[in-house]
Amino acid sequence: MSVTAARGFTASGVSAGIKDSGAPDLALVVNRGPSYAAAAVFTSNRVQAAPVRWSRRVIGDGALAAVVLNSGGANACTGPAGEDDARAMAERTARALRVEAEQVAVCSTGLIGVPLPMGRVTAGIDAAAAELSEDGGEAAAIAIKTTDSVHKTAVASGSGPDSGPRSGSGPGWTVGGMAKGAGMLAPGLATMLVVLTTDADVSAPTLDSALRQAVRTTFDRVDSDGCMSTNDTVLLLASGASGVRPDPAEFAEAVHGVCLDLALRLVADAEGASKEIEVRVVGAASEQDAVTVGRSIARNNLLKCALHGEDPNWGRVLSAIGTTSAVFDPDRLDVSINGVRVCRDGAAGEPRDKVDLSGRAVTVTVDLRSGDASATIWTNDLTAAYVHENSAYSS
Amino acid sequence: MSVTAARGFTASGVSAGIKDSGAPDLALVVNRGPSYAAAAVFTSNRVQAAPVRWSRRVIGDGALAAVVLNSGGANACTGPAGEDDARAMAERTARALRVEAEQVAVCSTGLIGVPLPMGRVTAGIDAAAAELSEDGGEAAAIAIKTTDSVHKTAVASGSGPDSGPRSGSGPGWTVGGMAKGAGMLAPGLATMLVVLTTDADVSAPTLDSALRQAVRTTFDRVDSDGCMSTNDTVLLLASGASGVRPDPAEFAEAVHGVCLDLALRLVADAEGASKEIEVRVVGAASEQDAVTVGRSIARNNLLKCALHGEDPNWGRVLSAIGTTSAVFDPDRLDVSINGVRVCRDGAAGEPRDKVDLSGRAVTVTVDLRSGDASATIWTNDLTAAYVHENSAYSS
Repeated sequence: MSVTAARGFTASGVSAGIKDSGAPDLALVVNRGPSYAAAAVFTSNRVQAAPVRWSRRVIGDGALAAVVLNSGGANACTGPAGEDDARAMAERTARALRVEAEQVAVCSTGLIGVPLPMGRVTAGIDAAAAELSEDGGEAAAIAIKTTDSVHKTAVASGSGPDSGPRSGSGPGWTVGGMAKGAGMLAPGLATMLVVLTTDADVSAPTLDSALRQAVRTTFDRVDSDGCMSTNDTVLLLASGASGVRPDPAEFAEAVHGVCLDLALRLVADAEGASKEIEVRVVGAASEQDAVTVGRSIARNNLLKCALHGEDPNWGRVLSAIGTTSAVFDPDRLDVSINGVRVCRDGAAGEPRDKVDLSGRAVTVTVDLRSGDASATIWTNDLTAAYVHENSAYSS
Repeated sequence: MSVTAARGFTASGVSAGIKDSGAPDLALVVNRGPSYAAAAVFTSNRVQAAPVRWSRRVIGDGALAAVVLNSGGANACTGPAGEDDARAMAERTARALRVEAEQVAVCSTGLIGVPLPMGRVTAGIDAAAAELSEDGGEAAAIAIKTTDSVHKTAVASGSGPDSGPRSGSGPGWTVGGMAKGAGMLAPGLATMLVVLTTDADVSAPTLDSALRQAVRTTFDRVDSDGCMSTNDTVLLLASGASGVRPDPAEFAEAVHGVCLDLALRLVADAEGASKEIEVRVVGAASEQDAVTVGRSIARNNLLKCALHGEDPNWGRVLSAIGTTSAVFDPDRLDVSINGVRVCRDGAAGEPRDKVDLSGRAVTVTVDLRSGDASATIWTNDLTAAYVHENSAYSS
């Protein structure tokens, strides 16, 4: 269902020939209204692709009529010509849809530093506009794939103000979305692109608040390989077509649910990875401490290799914790791996051979024993396949 | 020559049976005086091994008579029993040498979280004390190896106050040293241990200043895989046996030279690596900016994979720069790889196929065009062999 699960949206995905393979590579998502409220979160990388710069500017007024997305080229680090190309994509889309270019966000993903083949891109936009439909969500999700092995979509639904949560689209409201990418997924580019839509009648400030809240504890905590893209973009568009104005807390929860679902799909599809690793930090003095410790663990190459080798190497967890400035006492750290407390009070606990690491799912739980805050970071193991994927991509 | 190149020092290395392989695993370095000034730099990891805690305490008075070192076990995250073991190593060494335990530094390297076999360690200390000699520097350097393929030593010499620099030990003074480890070298432990000796007549504060200055721009800028050990230790002991009190600047330069020599040997011997990568950041607004940008580049797994695949992927360099808060304009960044300016003004420059990455030595030069400061970070590529080394070690 993807981005067309919510009423008021059409979408499409076509093969524009941007990718040499001929696979689908251009998508449109169009908001048919009656409302055009929108919110966005972009990469915090200071080197930002031209489409990110463009979209950041046009989202300023909290409204969008459409999003044009391409795979096969990131249009990042492409200089002033790249800026012109991003604008041209918005303009061509606007002309085809009879809207203003400033109402069109642009997302690109692919190799950095290579100009887009604009002839093919503009022809592809025209073709995609001709194919827009209320069933186009899947095609759009497929067209934004790079090295993703599957396309990723998610849907959550809410009720009118007087009844409980429900599923399916009907008299209630719906949040739907599509995503591509993740660190290990997308060698050479690593872009995460996400478009969420809803037919709820929600103002731009409420959208913005719900989106930021959701991203902060979902996409922002997926740390597959510690690398931050120049192109990461998460967009949320509201058509108001359901006519329902949901309770803001219920709406925020639905947005969070869709974001978490998509985020976990990104981790699960990380090419080159053989494990999904959930790093749970509890007993932290603050949420920031928990996030900092979780990220340090999730980015530790030595630990990621050990877990790949099914070695419950808690010493590497302690080493990673020790590089942070979080509040903790080194002699009071507890670490459990897949439920076995292998480290207690900063030293050996239960025997490490009790830990079963044969499955794909690994949970590393760290108790800092310094407070009540917690956070979870999701990552992957480090494998020879990751090295292969990422050393062979652009050459 | 190693730690016995300087007069006033004896050393030895023996097989104590700490390693299952029977390879040498215990070393002593003894200062015979007449001076006993010493300085040390330890890991900044807050999870610190018991020997680091011990040595940090005893170096407080700026004097050491000896160092006892073992490979085959890190004595890290071993709780109160580990603290007792570190102290017992110092006490046994002190008894054998007829000095005080508080004059003996302790260094350990090996797997974290496993207690040392203290019966073998103490017997090994006695055996090593019996074998001390003025030619023992090589044996000591060999006994501290873990997965190092070669032992690492370096020597620099200085003159008396009235003549220029010279080589060889004679009427002048000498700085000699040994080192083991580096990030990728030492799976599961990653400890760097360095012992430097000099027969110059230098006070503890001057030693300390020279050592900190040297470490800051050498060992601290080797960032093989971004992982920080619980055991890293660099010691500098001065016997004063040459009778020469060198010019402090000349002495500091000699210490820096030996540290740089050893640091580059660590990078060159990183197992699992196929390239030595020098990341030079110039045009920075401050040295701190240059270091921050250099580290971010050196720790970028995607770039390290690309260079392994001989792909001059400057987009990944820009992505890494963009994650920092250093002063720069994304549209004025220049990147050269092995002398070819592949990125100019934040966009594509010279053709990437002009870059020859077939050799082991890779230089990535970044010009931030924001000032006059610079810094160099040394690292390695990321290879399938690294993953193999680090996923198979302790299981």
